[in-house]
Amino acid sequence: MLLNRRVISQKMAILGVGLLGGSLGLAAKERGLAKKVVGYVRRESSIEDCLRAGAVDEATTNLGEAVENADIVIMCTPVGQLRLLTERVVSYLAKGALVTDVGSVKGSVVAQLTPMIGRTNATFVGSHPMAGSDQSGVHASTESLFEGAVCAVTPSETTPTDASDRIEALWKSVGGQPISMSPEDHDIMVARSSHLPHIAAAALARYVLDPSHPELQRKLCATGFRDTTRIASGSPEMWRDILLNNKINVLNEIHAMERELNLLRAAIAADDNSGILSFFTDAKQRKDALDFAD
Amino acid sequence: MLLNRRVISQKMAILGVGLLGGSLGLAAKERGLAKKVVGYVRRESSIEDCLRAGAVDEATTNLGEAVENADIVIMCTPVGQLRLLTERVVSYLAKGALVTDVGSVKGSVVAQLTPMIGRTNATFVGSHPMAGSDQSGVHASTESLFEGAVCAVTPSETTPTDASDRIEALWKSVGGQPISMSPEDHDIMVARSSHLPHIAAAALARYVLDPSHPELQRKLCATGFRDTTRIASGSPEMWRDILLNNKINVLNEIHAMERELNLLRAAIAADDNSGILSFFTDAKQRKDALDFAD
Repeated sequence: MLLNRRVISQKMAILGVGLLGGSLGLAAKERGLAKKVVGYVRRESSIEDCLRAGAVDEATTNLGEAVENADIVIMCTPVGQLRLLTERVVSYLAKGALVTDVGSVKGSVVAQLTPMIGRTNATFVGSHPMAGSDQSGVHASTESLFEGAVCAVTPSETTPTDASDRIEALWKSVGGQPISMSPEDHDIMVARSSHLPHIAAAALARYVLDPSHPELQRKLCATGFRDTTRIASGSPEMWRDILLNNKINVLNEIHAMERELNLLRAAIAADDNSGILSFFTDAKQRKDALDFAD
Repeated sequence: MLLNRRVISQKMAILGVGLLGGSLGLAAKERGLAKKVVGYVRRESSIEDCLRAGAVDEATTNLGEAVENADIVIMCTPVGQLRLLTERVVSYLAKGALVTDVGSVKGSVVAQLTPMIGRTNATFVGSHPMAGSDQSGVHASTESLFEGAVCAVTPSETTPTDASDRIEALWKSVGGQPISMSPEDHDIMVARSSHLPHIAAAALARYVLDPSHPELQRKLCATGFRDTTRIASGSPEMWRDILLNNKINVLNEIHAMERELNLLRAAIAADDNSGILSFFTDAKQRKDALDFAD
């Protein structure tokens, strides 16, 4: 009985089986969430990789084969590829199928995909599981990737509550912590807590390690530098797509960061002891409060 | 014979026994570098802490007792306290004693301390071991803290080579990687690879976690944000002192960061696909090259 209660899908289709798609497949299989998990990949050679990783029951380069009769379809491709993928997917979607994605931007994605998918009698609900790793690819997949991860679920104003609830249940069933919010709120907040840190890390890595600096400069990059710039190793293509799809919010956040730097710069230039101290005290208290809240 | 060859000090005085001082004491004792390691602490209650941690052979709140007859004196207090400490230390320094510090800024420190200490027939050579931890205090000390850490040694133009060599040998003997450079070069380069990242991390933590943002904002701070802002938990007082002691370089580096952000902002605003891609590709390649060089 317990097992039956946990099956939430007769056929789950995962389109794009990289780190996120592969981990979702592993988690779904491990927990018996779907009778069958099918993965769609672009390259023939990836089929073997998916099966070896145990990420799916079947893998195919045939999109129709992957999608037809699936009751849950999760698009795990980069944000920049979602629209094109959706154009192709709609021809195969089963009536009543529930479609979601894992993209880091939701406003433009939800606005574009909701009507495209809605016209086929299937339903789209955007998702953004905030899980990741330094590594990418199906070989880095792990069943526990979503464990404890906040998974934003972003219904539009027209999304049926039932569909949104089912997507929340999906993320909960792989260990995630689903939180519902509007696509617009999501994009404002991730521009701040995810896109801006990525930009800062990349700017630091690009600038500090500029080849025009003395060779010794690299030697003086210690663990603090390494931590602060860790995420600068992310995929350039993926980040370009994310930023362009969340352009206005991202531009606002870069402005905000510049205001913050200006504030500190003015305090240092003026030897404003207490101004500098209060800047760093705010930073430390807020950061410590975040860490202690875990 | 081996043991004798490793003894580099008859009496080593560590002034300020926190994370760095304590770890140096532990490493010196473990490796038999000094016949005796004496720690100077400000509070009576710290004596017990030092001894319990095994960081020193003797601990005292009496500065004279700690310093007299010591042939190596390492000042492990924050940069902002070095000048005052030195004023008090000079009355007790043995003739020929070698004095160093562990401060993150070297130009102003070397310029101030070299003549003060030189007048007493002792010699000052600045050091900056680039080792640290999220934690502070003697209880966090570890014998291996300096293992593999770059330790900048910054002789001035008047420093006898012999003194500089001995300080390099000190850091090497606790597992560090000593690198000699001028105090001025040091300060330019650490402003870039250490002070600027600290500023960026603190600015991000302070801004993103501002209490005026929605409560949900905190939930959307995932591992990327946490890594990028980890060092924002550092001591506000220590960082204020560091920045004010390296003011011109730090102001230059904040400007450089602003230029970098501006460059990316313009590319995003103009939908400059290839400009954004090349920004992130530079960042990733430089960061990956640093990591792979380990």
